[in-house]
Amino acid sequence: MKNFFFKKNKNVYINDVYNCLKLNKSKINFKLGDIKELNIATKKDISFFHSKKYFEALKKTKSKFVITQKKFRNILPKNIIPIEVNDVLLSVAKVTSIFYPDALVDNFDQNVKAINNKNFINLRAGQNILLGNNVKIGKNCSIGHNTIIEQNVIIGNNCNIGCNVLIKNTIIGNDTNILDGAVIGKKGFGFFPGKIKNIRYPHIGSVMIGNNVEIGCNNTIDRGSLSNTIIGDGTFLDNQVHIAHNVKIGKNCIITGQVGFAGSSSIGNRVMIGGQAGISGHIKIGDNVQIGGGSGVIKNITSNTKVMGYPAKNIRRFLKENKIND
Amino acid sequence: MKNFFFKKNKNVYINDVYNCLKLNKSKINFKLGDIKELNIATKKDISFFHSKKYFEALKKTKSKFVITQKKFRNILPKNIIPIEVNDVLLSVAKVTSIFYPDALVDNFDQNVKAINNKNFINLRAGQNILLGNNVKIGKNCSIGHNTIIEQNVIIGNNCNIGCNVLIKNTIIGNDTNILDGAVIGKKGFGFFPGKIKNIRYPHIGSVMIGNNVEIGCNNTIDRGSLSNTIIGDGTFLDNQVHIAHNVKIGKNCIITGQVGFAGSSSIGNRVMIGGQAGISGHIKIGDNVQIGGGSGVIKNITSNTKVMGYPAKNIRRFLKENKIND
Amino acid sequence: MKNFFFKKNKNVYINDVYNCLKLNKSKINFKLGDIKELNIATKKDISFFHSKKYFEALKKTKSKFVITQKKFRNILPKNIIPIEVNDVLLSVAKVTSIFYPDALVDNFDQNVKAINNKNFINLRAGQNILLGNNVKIGKNCSIGHNTIIEQNVIIGNNCNIGCNVLIKNTIIGNDTNILDGAVIGKKGFGFFPGKIKNIRYPHIGSVMIGNNVEIGCNNTIDRGSLSNTIIGDGTFLDNQVHIAHNVKIGKNCIITGQVGFAGSSSIGNRVMIGGQAGISGHIKIGDNVQIGGGSGVIKNITSNTKVMGYPAKNIRRFLKENKIND
Repeated sequence: MKNFFFKKNKNVYINDVYNCLKLNKSKINFKLGDIKELNIATKKDISFFHSKKYFEALKKTKSKFVITQKKFRNILPKNIIPIEVNDVLLSVAKVTSIFYPDALVDNFDQNVKAINNKNFINLRAGQNILLGNNVKIGKNCSIGHNTIIEQNVIIGNNCNIGCNVLIKNTIIGNDTNILDGAVIGKKGFGFFPGKIKNIRYPHIGSVMIGNNVEIGCNNTIDRGSLSNTIIGDGTFLDNQVHIAHNVKIGKNCIITGQVGFAGSSSIGNRVMIGGQAGISGHIKIGDNVQIGGGSGVIKNITSNTKVMGYPAKNIRRFLKENKIND
Repeated sequence: MKNFFFKKNKNVYINDVYNCLKLNKSKINFKLGDIKELNIATKKDISFFHSKKYFEALKKTKSKFVITQKKFRNILPKNIIPIEVNDVLLSVAKVTSIFYPDALVDNFDQNVKAINNKNFINLRAGQNILLGNNVKIGKNCSIGHNTIIEQNVIIGNNCNIGCNVLIKNTIIGNDTNILDGAVIGKKGFGFFPGKIKNIRYPHIGSVMIGNNVEIGCNNTIDRGSLSNTIIGDGTFLDNQVHIAHNVKIGKNCIITGQVGFAGSSSIGNRVMIGGQAGISGHIKIGDNVQIGGGSGVIKNITSNTKVMGYPAKNIRRFLKENKIND
Repeated sequence: MKNFFFKKNKNVYINDVYNCLKLNKSKINFKLGDIKELNIATKKDISFFHSKKYFEALKKTKSKFVITQKKFRNILPKNIIPIEVNDVLLSVAKVTSIFYPDALVDNFDQNVKAINNKNFINLRAGQNILLGNNVKIGKNCSIGHNTIIEQNVIIGNNCNIGCNVLIKNTIIGNDTNILDGAVIGKKGFGFFPGKIKNIRYPHIGSVMIGNNVEIGCNNTIDRGSLSNTIIGDGTFLDNQVHIAHNVKIGKNCIITGQVGFAGSSSIGNRVMIGGQAGISGHIKIGDNVQIGGGSGVIKNITSNTKVMGYPAKNIRRFLKENKIND
């Protein structure tokens, strides 16, 4: 899929990568397509492997060049050429910056202009709205006062966007509501903690919001780093929810107020999450899961289970262990 | 009390209700007043009973028509005509939509205009303020830049409203401060989770804020569904507090940062709540209660007690069970 | 250090203090410099002592007049003249109001004007920006749309300020980013809970933000009451973080989404805090501490330790006590 939001350098060769990582150059130079996660990389793309969690994806990947560590040398499929480094993710960040030199900055869109209602079909527009270049808005939408929609954002039909909303790097389906004060599509909170200085990493992903979704007031939804942040069809988010980069939420979920998601977790369909619960990073929650309010989920949850507690466990066990008599 | 914010259909008959719920019509048609909760319904109003929690209200209600389930048939007072349905709350939502056809939409106020200081007494107004029709503002108030106040909102004397605030469907007393970025009066997060699709329900309630109240920065306070959301006199809320629909908070309470209230809970007077605590829905907290930071309150709390923990329990028991030695 | 933000009454005498606190006047009147905490007070300043936690500071203070309670009479150094009251902090609030009569009000800056790019070097400015008098902005900064920067704020070089940001009473270093929707520098949540009425106390401190700092979207950072709120160089805050008055955060810390800090706590350098963790007031956290997501920290944490839980304890002990088998 084309990246609508970040301009790609189309002339990246494998030796640019070796050069950037201070490794010996290859004799045969090879023009690369892009940098992608293992499961979506094509044979022209460079990818990376930094944790055994992704071993299944590694076995199936089409990528030929994989940034990894020496310790994984023996488990790497033979058709893959390893690019061995000390810190995989830091190297991925450096290489991403070659492909997408603008992806480290996240400045506001300086080219926004006052909206012109005539460019859109049956739009109810508030006052002081600012729109970037090439924004697409479908039929029968409404946009509240003081809202800013940056370049290349796509909004479907019958959507209602509230007041004081900021949307960037985002594609929105039909019949979706974004409530007042939400901030959607800024770069994620991605840093490599350094002893001397923390280093930011690039975010070239987008936010993909489905149909019939509701995003509550003052929500913050960050765009993905290499993949996208996704909110599935029919999912409703209450106020003050925070969704970090690369999180994938399924369909028809109900996420109550002040819930927070750390980066890269994936949530199934019809999941219900009570207020103030927190979901750790890089975990997987199945379908039809119910998570009690205030829970802290720190490991995978299988489908059709109810959990509660900090850390979250089976809800019956939690309530049994926490009888309140006074 | 008159509903300032939502226009009522004055020609609703009992057979419109039966029709809407796909039930057999009554021979004698009866003009209804409104749909209300049991404790405030008059004899002209339709009401509903969906949980034994409300049995005391049921016994005293003046309503003659009560939407309920077959399983409650035997405990219903004899003077009440039951309207038996499978899902009480879903039916209430449908019937509310007959009375208040506009209560499902929650769009921004398109009729706002730049404020005219001359219409108000001794008002200090910032720049880019937008005011809806029929907004009332008392003497000696201040309103910060970029703030939006929608139609019919009432603000008392000596109030200070910050910058970037959005207020709708709200009535505010005297000497009250609303800080920057707060969003007050949007519809609550009320849905019936469906296997195929989540269904929204209408919100015809308001937010009622008393005298000498402080509402912190970036707070979100939703309006009620059938009753009002209430913040009592002298109560102070810190930043990033979330208050869901129908919550009633008493007088002189102190609610610290990032506390969240789920829907329909009621809090007494002089209650102090530490940061990040969460209060579950439909529970009752007495007077002079102290709730430690980070607590998760999942059941009623009697007056004059101190609680802490998740789930919250007597604070001495919590601290005894959670000695930290390392 | 000069207070940039609050105008001081330069003619405060010790008898004004006695008068205000309804104590007998002194025969020899003495002109006072300021009211300050024990460790930074000069011999011209009045200070206060209300808890044995501050006994070390008391022994070293240069202040000659200390507001305190009768019960501390015997431990007070002999060169100090005690001003004995029933409620130390309430008295401090009253005395602060003599020195800084404007510090109780926290209204928006009425004197802001549309920004004039020509006054700044290489500034990329968005639309609808409002600037107060005497705002200083360094070279090569960017400021997003609808942002408000109030009088006397100082911003260094190469800073990026997002859209819809509000900054007051704040000094910012170089290379720092403030993301969209952040509210920085409003008065803290400081009240004396009263049985009849809660009383606000004055906030004459500022927010001091270092170099290469990142402040996330919709953060709220309150200014200090008597001292400053401080965010050290290289520290990164994720979205929806709340920082109360007088909090001091060290260098190169990483604070994840929805973390909250209660007032007056101090955090060392290179501290990492997981999402939704809460830090109680008036505690001290050392260097290189790691605090797991969702933790509730209620006591001091020594350097180089990892903690988790509510209340937070050694992380190995937490995980051992909380094995999840189902």
